[in-house]
Amino acid sequence: MNEQSPGQPAAGHTDLPTTTNQVLIREVPKGPLEADHFALQVAQLPALGQGDVLVETLAITIGAGQRAGLQGSAGYAGPAESDVVMTGTGVGRVLASNHDAIAPDDIVMGLTGWSEHAVLTGDRLSIVDSTVAPSTLLGALGTNGLTAYFGLLDVGDPQPGETVVVSAAGGSVGHLVGQIAKRRGCTVVGVAGSDEKCASLIDDLGFDRAVNYKSTDFRAEFKAATPDRIDIYFDNTGGDILGSALFRMNTHGRIVCCGVVSQYDTASPDPGPRGVPGLLVNNRVRMQGFLVFDYADRFAEARAEISSWLASGDITARTTEFNGLSAAPRAFVDLLAGRTVGTTVINVASPTTPQP
Amino acid sequence: MNEQSPGQPAAGHTDLPTTTNQVLIREVPKGPLEADHFALQVAQLPALGQGDVLVETLAITIGAGQRAGLQGSAGYAGPAESDVVMTGTGVGRVLASNHDAIAPDDIVMGLTGWSEHAVLTGDRLSIVDSTVAPSTLLGALGTNGLTAYFGLLDVGDPQPGETVVVSAAGGSVGHLVGQIAKRRGCTVVGVAGSDEKCASLIDDLGFDRAVNYKSTDFRAEFKAATPDRIDIYFDNTGGDILGSALFRMNTHGRIVCCGVVSQYDTASPDPGPRGVPGLLVNNRVRMQGFLVFDYADRFAEARAEISSWLASGDITARTTEFNGLSAAPRAFVDLLAGRTVGTTVINVASPTTPQP
Repeated sequence: MNEQSPGQPAAGHTDLPTTTNQVLIREVPKGPLEADHFALQVAQLPALGQGDVLVETLAITIGAGQRAGLQGSAGYAGPAESDVVMTGTGVGRVLASNHDAIAPDDIVMGLTGWSEHAVLTGDRLSIVDSTVAPSTLLGALGTNGLTAYFGLLDVGDPQPGETVVVSAAGGSVGHLVGQIAKRRGCTVVGVAGSDEKCASLIDDLGFDRAVNYKSTDFRAEFKAATPDRIDIYFDNTGGDILGSALFRMNTHGRIVCCGVVSQYDTASPDPGPRGVPGLLVNNRVRMQGFLVFDYADRFAEARAEISSWLASGDITARTTEFNGLSAAPRAFVDLLAGRTVGTTVINVASPTTPQP
Repeated sequence: MNEQSPGQPAAGHTDLPTTTNQVLIREVPKGPLEADHFALQVAQLPALGQGDVLVETLAITIGAGQRAGLQGSAGYAGPAESDVVMTGTGVGRVLASNHDAIAPDDIVMGLTGWSEHAVLTGDRLSIVDSTVAPSTLLGALGTNGLTAYFGLLDVGDPQPGETVVVSAAGGSVGHLVGQIAKRRGCTVVGVAGSDEKCASLIDDLGFDRAVNYKSTDFRAEFKAATPDRIDIYFDNTGGDILGSALFRMNTHGRIVCCGVVSQYDTASPDPGPRGVPGLLVNNRVRMQGFLVFDYADRFAEARAEISSWLASGDITARTTEFNGLSAAPRAFVDLLAGRTVGTTVINVASPTTPQP
């Protein structure tokens, strides 16, 4: 992706790598994603330009929303292309730096992509706390945690006693949304894809109720689980679950549109649910899409609060971890199939492994 | 609808009517509405109870949204029933009153229903300015004008220089929305159902551009008419026009969900447009349903401002008027077919006609 010729980094470790393993998008998927839409390759690392940093990737995270980025139509990240390194957020250790504010052995977070090593623009990296596990930096303190925090608290504006329903409730964002809503004194109902996940939401994470959307009686069970109807529906899925929620909204309810996982793993998304926008009118419902990047100037404040909740045990961060970069395509498929819980993390390199 | 036996009103005119012509819902429509879903009948008027008022209806208005009330499913007004008097807002002259604050010859507005005379609960009526034409009281100063006012200004929050698009732009609410938006310094694009309506929006009402949604090139023409995309889409239609607008929204755009006229004249509304809610997320769009009744405590303020705009000629109120109660079913069908412009008004009795 960088046209510069390979060369020796300017400063830092000796025996620096000149090549890296990385995962390419081999083919933009036309139907459900499969692991062989990706290919592992070895690539030369470019020379460090002024302001660049050579990073050894420690861990990356994969979010279901990234599947939307592989659709032909342009989402917020633009249309998908094949034969490029798969994009993604990671945490890495700096091996060499040509950037004034970043030093070797700093731990940084940014768009490392699916690559064991990468030459990155230092200005686009954040130095992070090296005492915090990469999986926490990428999960509860990363985009997932911030998305749950601002989506629920800012867009949803929960009030004590209100009923909050969250879909993909066992997922990276959903499991945090429910716990934050409990802290605000709300009744929390999760929607997830297995009885086991539903039980864990209640038993381990303190949700009040949970409903399995794969149940043949889903609509009736969903109704029974929301006897006071719904004040805030935090929507990670769209599709039929959104359709059911639309019919259960209280007057002046809020629908927080965070993601559309039901529509990602396809080249041709379904029409919207029946009743949009008529039901919005009848119940004066607000349905609002948001992207967490718009809250960048408040990330520090949010991370401080989430950290305090993690430290006190008030919220529990879940991760599903895979080892080795080559596991990333399979992890992505598992994530989309609902076989992961919490934040999906690929441990690319051990933070304590010395360089060969 | 009233179980009391007929009797003589308590006070007021002599020779008061004891019967009335009224229009019944003969059959809840299963497909498109037809005039013969209604039936004219003569009914006895009940005696005036304490607090009741006998009203001679001068004019009623019909709104497309009332068609939703005739669908089997429950909207905000509850499910439809046959063999009841068709509901509706009207302006009438008081013939007799058992209410302390309402006197004979007062002009009142309220739910008269489709009835030449009616015995109504005085507490549910408002005394209105007898020097203002009933069609204005029911249009620009009635629910339509208030809906345009609060929907655009409060839910939409237009800023100077923004692009406002309104569907059913020649309709009772739409033609006022566009004119109010122009007053706020917005670029205004109307969507209407004929080239003639489109020309009138531009030439007579000052819209910047207008697009005929029945054009075979609608999508291309709609795109060409919104070169700066859309900041506020005021949606009176839902359906395909909403679908097109969703793809043209600017970041942080607002969709004001006012009505769903594309879905009213059927027993089985379509699914929502493709791209809901994914497009809301990508462009951080807010889509908000509202009902004007929620703004009741600000109606007086809004009416004063709209009156000043009408007086100065800054906005022009359009009506399509029909004469005689028996014209109401046909007027309703015409309204749903897009054959009316502005507020649809039925002149039930002349305000100056003396009682026989």
